[in-house]
Amino acid sequence: METFFSFVNENQDKYVEKLREIVGIRSVSSSANYRPDTIRMGEWLIAELERLGASTKRVEPGTQELEGATVPLPPVVLATYGTDPSKKTVLIYGHYDVQPALLSDGWTHDPFTLTEDEKGRLLGRGASDDKGPVLGWLCTIEAFQKTGLDLPVNIKFCFEGMEESGSVGLDKVIIREASDYFKDVDCVCISDNYWLGTSKPCLTYGLRGVSYFQLSVKGPAKDLHSGVFGGTVHEPMTDLVHLMTRLVDVNGKILIPGIMDQVAELTDQEKQIYKDISFDIQDLRGSLGSETEIYDSAEDLLMHRWRYPSLSLHGIEGAFYSPGEKTVIPANPIGKFSIRTVPNMDSDKVTELVCDYVKSEFKKLGSKNTVDVWCGHAGRPWVSSPNHWNFVAAAKAVETVFGCKPDLTREGGSIPVTLTFEEALHKNVLLLPMGASDDGAHSINEKVDRRNFVEGIKLYGAYFYELAKVAEE
Amino acid sequence: METFFSFVNENQDKYVEKLREIVGIRSVSSSANYRPDTIRMGEWLIAELERLGASTKRVEPGTQELEGATVPLPPVVLATYGTDPSKKTVLIYGHYDVQPALLSDGWTHDPFTLTEDEKGRLLGRGASDDKGPVLGWLCTIEAFQKTGLDLPVNIKFCFEGMEESGSVGLDKVIIREASDYFKDVDCVCISDNYWLGTSKPCLTYGLRGVSYFQLSVKGPAKDLHSGVFGGTVHEPMTDLVHLMTRLVDVNGKILIPGIMDQVAELTDQEKQIYKDISFDIQDLRGSLGSETEIYDSAEDLLMHRWRYPSLSLHGIEGAFYSPGEKTVIPANPIGKFSIRTVPNMDSDKVTELVCDYVKSEFKKLGSKNTVDVWCGHAGRPWVSSPNHWNFVAAAKAVETVFGCKPDLTREGGSIPVTLTFEEALHKNVLLLPMGASDDGAHSINEKVDRRNFVEGIKLYGAYFYELAKVAEE
Repeated sequence: METFFSFVNENQDKYVEKLREIVGIRSVSSSANYRPDTIRMGEWLIAELERLGASTKRVEPGTQELEGATVPLPPVVLATYGTDPSKKTVLIYGHYDVQPALLSDGWTHDPFTLTEDEKGRLLGRGASDDKGPVLGWLCTIEAFQKTGLDLPVNIKFCFEGMEESGSVGLDKVIIREASDYFKDVDCVCISDNYWLGTSKPCLTYGLRGVSYFQLSVKGPAKDLHSGVFGGTVHEPMTDLVHLMTRLVDVNGKILIPGIMDQVAELTDQEKQIYKDISFDIQDLRGSLGSETEIYDSAEDLLMHRWRYPSLSLHGIEGAFYSPGEKTVIPANPIGKFSIRTVPNMDSDKVTELVCDYVKSEFKKLGSKNTVDVWCGHAGRPWVSSPNHWNFVAAAKAVETVFGCKPDLTREGGSIPVTLTFEEALHKNVLLLPMGASDDGAHSINEKVDRRNFVEGIKLYGAYFYELAKVAEE
Repeated sequence: METFFSFVNENQDKYVEKLREIVGIRSVSSSANYRPDTIRMGEWLIAELERLGASTKRVEPGTQELEGATVPLPPVVLATYGTDPSKKTVLIYGHYDVQPALLSDGWTHDPFTLTEDEKGRLLGRGASDDKGPVLGWLCTIEAFQKTGLDLPVNIKFCFEGMEESGSVGLDKVIIREASDYFKDVDCVCISDNYWLGTSKPCLTYGLRGVSYFQLSVKGPAKDLHSGVFGGTVHEPMTDLVHLMTRLVDVNGKILIPGIMDQVAELTDQEKQIYKDISFDIQDLRGSLGSETEIYDSAEDLLMHRWRYPSLSLHGIEGAFYSPGEKTVIPANPIGKFSIRTVPNMDSDKVTELVCDYVKSEFKKLGSKNTVDVWCGHAGRPWVSSPNHWNFVAAAKAVETVFGCKPDLTREGGSIPVTLTFEEALHKNVLLLPMGASDDGAHSINEKVDRRNFVEGIKLYGAYFYELAKVAEE
């Protein structure tokens, strides 16, 4: 790999230039105005893939209603590079759309002009999420070509342009192509998350799911004046906060019986993973902007982010929410809360436990109002084995490029496409991030460090190399 | 009074016509567009008062910023009718502005065209609130004049055009004129509230005050993603609902120690007042649109509306409030609640008790977040003696006109001008409503029943008559 690594080092400015070119394409998927730019970004990728000799397939997922107009969805770009039946085939996913960004939001530079600062930070919208990684894969192929090295795996690409807007249309494409365009895929790699910190790469093998609930308390037919009715009627808002209080305590302990019984037991092997992870509570405090963490140890904090469920109260619909004062008795406030789910929690069972508990606690209140509770959306948790050859290959690649073992991490949030790939293809999925924890995806001054970008390209190459070598078990 | 009553009966269609004329003047005080109409309504009253022989004083309270423009405030119309030093002088307050109204809100007729239906309901914006009562006083004077009867009291009028928009500018006028234009006033009468039901008049001798609180819990520097942080940080929203739960139980019981200790004890005489009141729980259920009242007896319900404090939770600022789902951990939710206050509660003491309690309960929670709580606005309760000669005169007038004793009522809400008059003039204030409980002030299809309007004019005349006779004690 030394030839490859040297070539990448020597050509890094070209890669940064190319990143500058595509950061300049304003592929903001949430805006109808930028839809032509978003489509153009998809077309740029098709052209670049074909220039590299890949065969491509442009899939049009259809149209959507956006800001009062019917607009075409950006294409899902599929591509095939290499079809040698003696090689493994890896499916690479990435997205070419970005979050909105305005200079007036507080950016120090124009967000769509990639700007490198004195610390080697490449600032620009999408630099880390997810144009840097997407471009990284293409640079990797080019480096193999230019150095005359054989690319030791076949690659399938799946690049979408709607990730920042709910991946509209993508699931159908994946499910349809699972037995067609993706049928020879042996493993999947997604590079769309972040290192746990800023110095050490990680491989991510788990994500929490989420079950989102709404809890409605109904009383009077319409909002009441608290002067006229206060003290004489059962107020739905009072009932609601009493119920919300019974869901979770101030230390984050879920009070719904049966929920914790479903959580997979902590094994000794798993405990060891947490011991090996480098995580500084000061980093957490930095992103919080406060010192309000519940646990003292890094292990406890990480376990409660990744492998234990949590319950958050998000807000109340139908009550007073503006600044100032209003003396209303809300007639039908609706509490919003969600449970982050983990193995082996079953979404249906969670819903059943929540609904039964809320209704039985409501009965205990003795109010004359009525209650309703429902799960609006449930996404399953995902956990993979860090012992799978896909992870083993990636871990070796990290050791080769960075000289250290990767952190084995999970994430507290969801990346729904992970589960879609796993369920549709029945293949192992690996999350292999390029960016660091402080990249500020979705924030102002998003950046990818030059180091992460360049070493990331090397990592991708080393990953291909290790994938070819590793024994499929 | 028989001559007077007959005359009113015979001329009632003329009064209805006049009401139709002024309902047609769109004196919506909240709208800059309608400000000229609102001023025109004030000028109509000045002209009418002068036609009746009153001397008038047009007070300009100044200007206000409204919908981006500086507009003049509508005049406060002062007038004097009679200056005989041997007669008592009564100050009459009313307002000539109205709430907004649009046919498209659901009115069955144009809201600014007074329309009588087959049940004798005079439908139109302001018919009951408060153009009917304001006009009623003028019709009363005219009826005394036309029947050649001596008006047995001197009258001072104070009509404002900003009541529906916070009475901007009025307090200053009242306080300034207390020792000047209003210096000879012996008692005050306000006709701007409603009967307890639909069949029997009432005199109102008390109003609850209100202390409005905001309760802020602060943790992280900005809103967090519940996937990334859920389970690892003390969530301010969780702390907040736990605190809100500790303010009041689902049966409306205030849980803040010391609050109930301040409430005036229930006397036997007061108990008797409640026994005599005709109040049907079905009426309450009608206005609730539900059967969610806390108490079974009319006495309990009325006492808890009028003479006991209540605590209502109004909502939360800074949390998620829209339909749909958002997985946010709010960084700084602010709970809104208010306490309806009654004699002998002291606003400062209430604030102290609330703030001390919230802070001590917060400490018990053991959260690392911080709490702040403050009283944004406190209006005092008001209670008058129904044994005062002003009330005695009004009660006799009710017996004369309606053949029954009036209900002696209080109200759960506030009418701030009541307290202003009492504090500025140090004279007894009587609330003498014309309209019925189902008039729908502020709602669509506001109405005053022809019966209430016509008998109301008779009541006003009889009240003047009884005022002259009653001994000042």
